[in-house]
Amino acid sequence: MLKSSLLAVVVIVSLIGNLTFAQASEADLTWPLLAGCLAFLIPVGFTLLASGGMSEEKAVPTAMIGLAATWLALAGYLACGFALQFGGIGLVSDLPNLKGLIWEWSPLDVTWGTGWGTLGLKGFFLQKGADTPIAYALFFSQLPLVITASLIPLLTLRKRAKSLVLVLGALLIAAVLYPSVGNWVWGGGWLANLGLNLELGHGFIDFAGSGMVHLLGGVIALGGIVALGFRSENTREPARMPPVQLPLLAILGSLLLLVGWLGLIFSNPLYMSNEGLPASLIAVNVVLAAGGGALVAMLYTWFATGGADVLMAARGLAAGLVAISAAGPFVPPWAALIIGAVAGLLLPLGIYFVEYLLRLDDPAAAIATHGLSGLWGLLALAIFADGRYGVGWNRVGAEGYLGIAGQGVSGYFVAPGFQLDLPNQLYAQVVGIATITIVAFVSAWAFFKILNLIVKAWTKPSV
Amino acid sequence: MLKSSLLAVVVIVSLIGNLTFAQASEADLTWPLLAGCLAFLIPVGFTLLASGGMSEEKAVPTAMIGLAATWLALAGYLACGFALQFGGIGLVSDLPNLKGLIWEWSPLDVTWGTGWGTLGLKGFFLQKGADTPIAYALFFSQLPLVITASLIPLLTLRKRAKSLVLVLGALLIAAVLYPSVGNWVWGGGWLANLGLNLELGHGFIDFAGSGMVHLLGGVIALGGIVALGFRSENTREPARMPPVQLPLLAILGSLLLLVGWLGLIFSNPLYMSNEGLPASLIAVNVVLAAGGGALVAMLYTWFATGGADVLMAARGLAAGLVAISAAGPFVPPWAALIIGAVAGLLLPLGIYFVEYLLRLDDPAAAIATHGLSGLWGLLALAIFADGRYGVGWNRVGAEGYLGIAGQGVSGYFVAPGFQLDLPNQLYAQVVGIATITIVAFVSAWAFFKILNLIVKAWTKPSV
Amino acid sequence: MLKSSLLAVVVIVSLIGNLTFAQASEADLTWPLLAGCLAFLIPVGFTLLASGGMSEEKAVPTAMIGLAATWLALAGYLACGFALQFGGIGLVSDLPNLKGLIWEWSPLDVTWGTGWGTLGLKGFFLQKGADTPIAYALFFSQLPLVITASLIPLLTLRKRAKSLVLVLGALLIAAVLYPSVGNWVWGGGWLANLGLNLELGHGFIDFAGSGMVHLLGGVIALGGIVALGFRSENTREPARMPPVQLPLLAILGSLLLLVGWLGLIFSNPLYMSNEGLPASLIAVNVVLAAGGGALVAMLYTWFATGGADVLMAARGLAAGLVAISAAGPFVPPWAALIIGAVAGLLLPLGIYFVEYLLRLDDPAAAIATHGLSGLWGLLALAIFADGRYGVGWNRVGAEGYLGIAGQGVSGYFVAPGFQLDLPNQLYAQVVGIATITIVAFVSAWAFFKILNLIVKAWTKPSV
Repeated sequence: MLKSSLLAVVVIVSLIGNLTFAQASEADLTWPLLAGCLAFLIPVGFTLLASGGMSEEKAVPTAMIGLAATWLALAGYLACGFALQFGGIGLVSDLPNLKGLIWEWSPLDVTWGTGWGTLGLKGFFLQKGADTPIAYALFFSQLPLVITASLIPLLTLRKRAKSLVLVLGALLIAAVLYPSVGNWVWGGGWLANLGLNLELGHGFIDFAGSGMVHLLGGVIALGGIVALGFRSENTREPARMPPVQLPLLAILGSLLLLVGWLGLIFSNPLYMSNEGLPASLIAVNVVLAAGGGALVAMLYTWFATGGADVLMAARGLAAGLVAISAAGPFVPPWAALIIGAVAGLLLPLGIYFVEYLLRLDDPAAAIATHGLSGLWGLLALAIFADGRYGVGWNRVGAEGYLGIAGQGVSGYFVAPGFQLDLPNQLYAQVVGIATITIVAFVSAWAFFKILNLIVKAWTKPSV
Repeated sequence: MLKSSLLAVVVIVSLIGNLTFAQASEADLTWPLLAGCLAFLIPVGFTLLASGGMSEEKAVPTAMIGLAATWLALAGYLACGFALQFGGIGLVSDLPNLKGLIWEWSPLDVTWGTGWGTLGLKGFFLQKGADTPIAYALFFSQLPLVITASLIPLLTLRKRAKSLVLVLGALLIAAVLYPSVGNWVWGGGWLANLGLNLELGHGFIDFAGSGMVHLLGGVIALGGIVALGFRSENTREPARMPPVQLPLLAILGSLLLLVGWLGLIFSNPLYMSNEGLPASLIAVNVVLAAGGGALVAMLYTWFATGGADVLMAARGLAAGLVAISAAGPFVPPWAALIIGAVAGLLLPLGIYFVEYLLRLDDPAAAIATHGLSGLWGLLALAIFADGRYGVGWNRVGAEGYLGIAGQGVSGYFVAPGFQLDLPNQLYAQVVGIATITIVAFVSAWAFFKILNLIVKAWTKPSV
Repeated sequence: MLKSSLLAVVVIVSLIGNLTFAQASEADLTWPLLAGCLAFLIPVGFTLLASGGMSEEKAVPTAMIGLAATWLALAGYLACGFALQFGGIGLVSDLPNLKGLIWEWSPLDVTWGTGWGTLGLKGFFLQKGADTPIAYALFFSQLPLVITASLIPLLTLRKRAKSLVLVLGALLIAAVLYPSVGNWVWGGGWLANLGLNLELGHGFIDFAGSGMVHLLGGVIALGGIVALGFRSENTREPARMPPVQLPLLAILGSLLLLVGWLGLIFSNPLYMSNEGLPASLIAVNVVLAAGGGALVAMLYTWFATGGADVLMAARGLAAGLVAISAAGPFVPPWAALIIGAVAGLLLPLGIYFVEYLLRLDDPAAAIATHGLSGLWGLLALAIFADGRYGVGWNRVGAEGYLGIAGQGVSGYFVAPGFQLDLPNQLYAQVVGIATITIVAFVSAWAFFKILNLIVKAWTKPSV
């Protein structure tokens, strides 16, 4: 397809960023491990949030599918996903215990350069090179994310597809789709290297999953809905907010999301060893974005319908969390509040657009909550990153960036003394967004279309 | 009013306690940050607990108001509250990263001494001096507390006032009232300096919010109820325990409170760097007080009504947690059990007193659960503090206290080898209690009275 | 009974393992304390799981009894249990702050050797030797476990016995039964020393409570059910899965269990100072076992009944967690998945066996979920321990084991380069299982039989 049509297996030494991976010893695992425990509240929260927005007879099967997806995702990621995502992480990390994971494949010839890694190929079933404490911790830190990415489309597609199809879909996401994108963004792959290879800012940046988890999951849900057929006219309900049947559980779910997210942001053992990251700023930004999202979504429904809508407020909180995940450590608190608030405003508009203009049936609001907020969060990084943090991120500008020593990831509204970096960082984000959107939509559409045909043929063999 | 009628802006160097603030480096932030994540379970727990004690049609709007208060409090504290509370913390802290926060205002002339700080005036919107990692961590650690302080009155006042009035009330608490009291107690202000200035023990001590959060919130609720009118005769219900409609959620809420509280006690970055504080003792005391409160409240309803009351047991747990917050590290485990048990006994008596003797309508039992338990906890410190811990607290007695080297915060039942400190420490606590009560009641009463009149005039402009 | 009929109080210096207890300084308490906070989600989860499987009118009283048991267990463990369990821990620990706890009693004469400790006798009410930070932390870490052990039988016996009997039962478990077994396994007692004394592998190993908490609790439930009478014919319900009334709360409970368990495994201050334990491997194993249990239990009900059963999936998750607790750090990830999966298969079979063949009435499924899974987990250690970790555990083989330097706890499927240790480690596990089962069943049967007779005689004195 490209120049290297022989698809040579190329071992790429791309060194994502020696800043990011330096100095982590075994002792440093304690913090990310404990934080990772909390992050398991995220799938709990999303399950409650989705179930809480449905009628009682639908809530339990939805939660059930969520539980099934959780554990299938786990099995798929253990067997195959981790190896695809981090099989080459040893090439870009200084940690001695990751030196066993050094097989990164690229479809491009080596003459294209060494930063175009596409898939890892080592560490299947956590064996052979992936049996060290740091590799276990890395695996552990990904579990809440891969579970969430599998959960998002299933919660919204539950009644449109057979359980078996959903089950296979969760496996596909956890074993192939999430790990592939994850390799490009966090595993030493080509999206992270856009800065090094093409001078697009610091490369594609997604700190905690706005793109890898939520844009991916939201677009997979979109692809599935489109593949499984638009809503028929007679099932269309009157133009109103979704019904709220189990609202207390939805509120509880959204607040557990907040606690889980605060764990998530500290759970990555590769980042947490980075002395340059301001942990307390990330925590403040997460809470402010969640608050901004909840407040604006609540006020919107207050003005639009005369009464604040519980479910929308809970989803607004989630939308704010999704949006801040890309840029967590790189923006100041006031920007985090704005990022969350914009996500909270986009949410009801997005739901209206999906439900009443596109006429797509999205009962868990996955497209607006995850897809739209994730997209916005990735763009927002290129606008609000203020240059104070992230020096040397993705191995760009460790010695100085745009001629200024100590400048980190930057967008338009930089702090005094720093240079703005608007077009280039934005280009990197747009390339990442487009890549994730296209891969997710095409894969999901094809998968659900084909599986649906097979299932139909199977269940009605003759007649 | 006092000698300095010119209200000079005085920068006060009061040095709360070099013991308390020494040695915290950036690395020490990891523990308080992770613990602070857990503390966000506290507003979740109180929302479930309040909603779980109401009928179904009231539970959801109550939770909704809780959610709204949460995020409004956040915005108000970001804009203004943090600056008022900690704008002068740099004057009393050795931490280099807090040196930008050095503006503490006092109404008294400098000839009164330098320990009468009343309000900080730096760090609005987390800008200018408040943009360092330790300041972010300090801000983060206050969020669950300020949210809780705003939540308490709203949960109980929900059906007595218009939503807009409640919203403005939450803003007032988070932006002005909580920060003011917080400045006096934790921000280097005058209540903490009662020991230094007037030789009242170690000054007013409130380790984790018995007074600053719960007495404040409970009295604000009381002031609001009084301002909005006593219950009319016809709405008075028969003399029985509150109905239990959503009891499982109330139980869940109370247990989440316990987990959140265990996070809260470790979340303050200023305390956690203090080598002299026994973290494990605080944890044990919190659990024992919660257990004592739940057990006694449960047994009371068992003896009084023939069946243990779920809601009362859940509230008893909360009352025990509130009561131990003042004295957490300073009392031995047996005293923590007693402090919790007394709070668990005061709770049903307080509810009975408020509901049937005062005839005040307090559906979330805020006055008894928060106000009364908080008051008891602040007094209990002066009774049970055993002198083993807290050496040099509020800069009193770092070299030795009452002639004994190594004696810390003390009350009546001191450990062998230590001197009792009953009248003085008790005086400090009483001054603090009286101050908080008066400020909270008067502010709340005036606010709700005036706002209610305005709203009434607005909604009925002529006639 | 044995040679030493004089029951001499023997102070035993048995040194469980210098590897396990070395190097823990005060600073190391931060991690186990924070993790211990999370572990309090475990009783929350089990209460929701048990309540969620019942009809609404039964769910609330069941949760109520759970709450009562929680706090009674706490009081009993404070007064007496901790002293019985850890009164001799100072004899086997290198930590200077535990040197006050040095009274371990044995019924055997000293000529039998010094490893037959049976009960500690120091530290009642956390006084005298138990008033140090590390002792407080040790006490704190046991609370979620002792609460759970008391909770298990009560949740299932609630409607068979008077509340007063249940209350006394919880006290007995927390104050005597759990601490006794806990002394033998974790407190320096004889089960841990089977390796040293009788060359049975590394002695009885139960890393996080498969036996001490769950086998104990499950068998106590069994003893109680048998003592209180088999189910009469007319109450027998048709052969179907238990009814699911509050399924979302059951799912929430099971997921909170997972988060709590991840805290639990890090909460023991004695283990966490052990540099040789792979914290990240334990975390991965816990999640994989939970997933395996949930998935297999879910698939079983899918195949058996045509639809996945929510409650069974939630209980399967719990069963997987129970089963992995014994062997957490000693097995590779693939084995953890199998251990969980087998537990998930044993669960529905065990429920069927108990309900329809034995015709025992076990509404919370305590016997299958806790007893059977705990038993399986203890055996699984002797099968899957791969020898990579646990060098010198229980003071066996610190210099090399089975002739191989660096070999740790081993079973049948050892890693390449290690010797299998099948019969001996299995014998140790079987001795431990038999001991716990007999002690628990006999104590529970006698207690409930006698108390029931007393209560009956009391309530009908004459006639």
